[in-house]
Amino acid sequence: MLEGEAFARITVRGEARRWSVNRIITIGREFGSGGRELGKRLAEKLGIAYYDKEILVAIAKKTDFAVDYVQQILSRRPELYFPITVGQSFYPIVDPILEQNNTVYSEQSRIITDMAKKSDCIIVGRCADYILKDMHPLRLFVYAEMDFKMDRCRLRAKEHEDLTDRKLTQQIKRIDKNRASYYQFYTGRKWGDKLNYDLCINTSYIPIKEAVDGIAKIFS
Amino acid sequence: MLEGEAFARITVRGEARRWSVNRIITIGREFGSGGRELGKRLAEKLGIAYYDKEILVAIAKKTDFAVDYVQQILSRRPELYFPITVGQSFYPIVDPILEQNNTVYSEQSRIITDMAKKSDCIIVGRCADYILKDMHPLRLFVYAEMDFKMDRCRLRAKEHEDLTDRKLTQQIKRIDKNRASYYQFYTGRKWGDKLNYDLCINTSYIPIKEAVDGIAKIFS
Repeated sequence: MLEGEAFARITVRGEARRWSVNRIITIGREFGSGGRELGKRLAEKLGIAYYDKEILVAIAKKTDFAVDYVQQILSRRPELYFPITVGQSFYPIVDPILEQNNTVYSEQSRIITDMAKKSDCIIVGRCADYILKDMHPLRLFVYAEMDFKMDRCRLRAKEHEDLTDRKLTQQIKRIDKNRASYYQFYTGRKWGDKLNYDLCINTSYIPIKEAVDGIAKIFS
Repeated sequence: MLEGEAFARITVRGEARRWSVNRIITIGREFGSGGRELGKRLAEKLGIAYYDKEILVAIAKKTDFAVDYVQQILSRRPELYFPITVGQSFYPIVDPILEQNNTVYSEQSRIITDMAKKSDCIIVGRCADYILKDMHPLRLFVYAEMDFKMDRCRLRAKEHEDLTDRKLTQQIKRIDKNRASYYQFYTGRKWGDKLNYDLCINTSYIPIKEAVDGIAKIFS
């Protein structure tokens, strides 16, 4: 495929646009906001592929790491005193943990790009909006008020049921802080900053089902 | 009307909701992002009232200020060393300019509330999301990348045609800075912070017509 052929949408001054090979949606999401549910429902509605855990499994297969270990690597910012985006260092990087992080990130980028080239799809998390930026995906960010996220966590997962409000808030904040650090480390961008997305949806007041109908309308 | 009767939408955990008397949409927007066009088209599509300049005219009528003067007052943050939301001061405020600002703001709040009680409507700017918070409006924020806003300004208004990129950027930033200060002064909230809105739309890549179709779907 020629460079440029995979471009999904080109918008000029918000009026004209061109669809090409594949249409991609990426979803960034705060923990507990319902971003995954929104992604799944949207994929069902549009009849296109949905990738989330599948990416972990594919990375594990390629790198010979266990799926759980891949997940662990992907949920934390690599420990390093300067971001890799700074460019070449004069000395080879020998930190084995960082090497693993970078291997996983590179493999993830390759897999996500392959998936996006293969068919229309929705990809949740994993810096996909940045990795696929040349394919101009529709970039969603799903967020919500803390009260809403706490309620949702308690309803959906047994392990959150008995946590105090304070503990649960801390947990939600910690997970999002890790996501933000990871995103910032590999993209140089601020996670959740609305300028990095095309549409930001607050699920506290917009029911997911209705958001899905609206986004499907925009995407069609 | 009883307190609570005017509540437009109540969402519980994003699943259940109740529509009551009137359905309101408020639109905050960056200068040049196309927020007004989006509001007008959305009002047409939904067949509901659209209020923007009408509010200025109504305020002018009530306060005996000229429409242009009201607009001038509303586009700048009042000069004051502490926000009025801090509470009662021990001394009466005697600054006549601030008095005028507060008179206009109070009148504006009353007019906006009356309009929202009268029928379904869309209100652009003017802290309407905050003024009508007890009516649970659908709160939109429309924004865009600077390049897009510059193109749009040049296309739409003769006076921007001959400005250098630098001058035009400065002008756009200045107008938005004033909007942010005004909003912060009267609401105590951060203008453009996505947590204050239900849906944030980046018009750089989502054409306004398509955004309107999507939002109408969510709102119906």
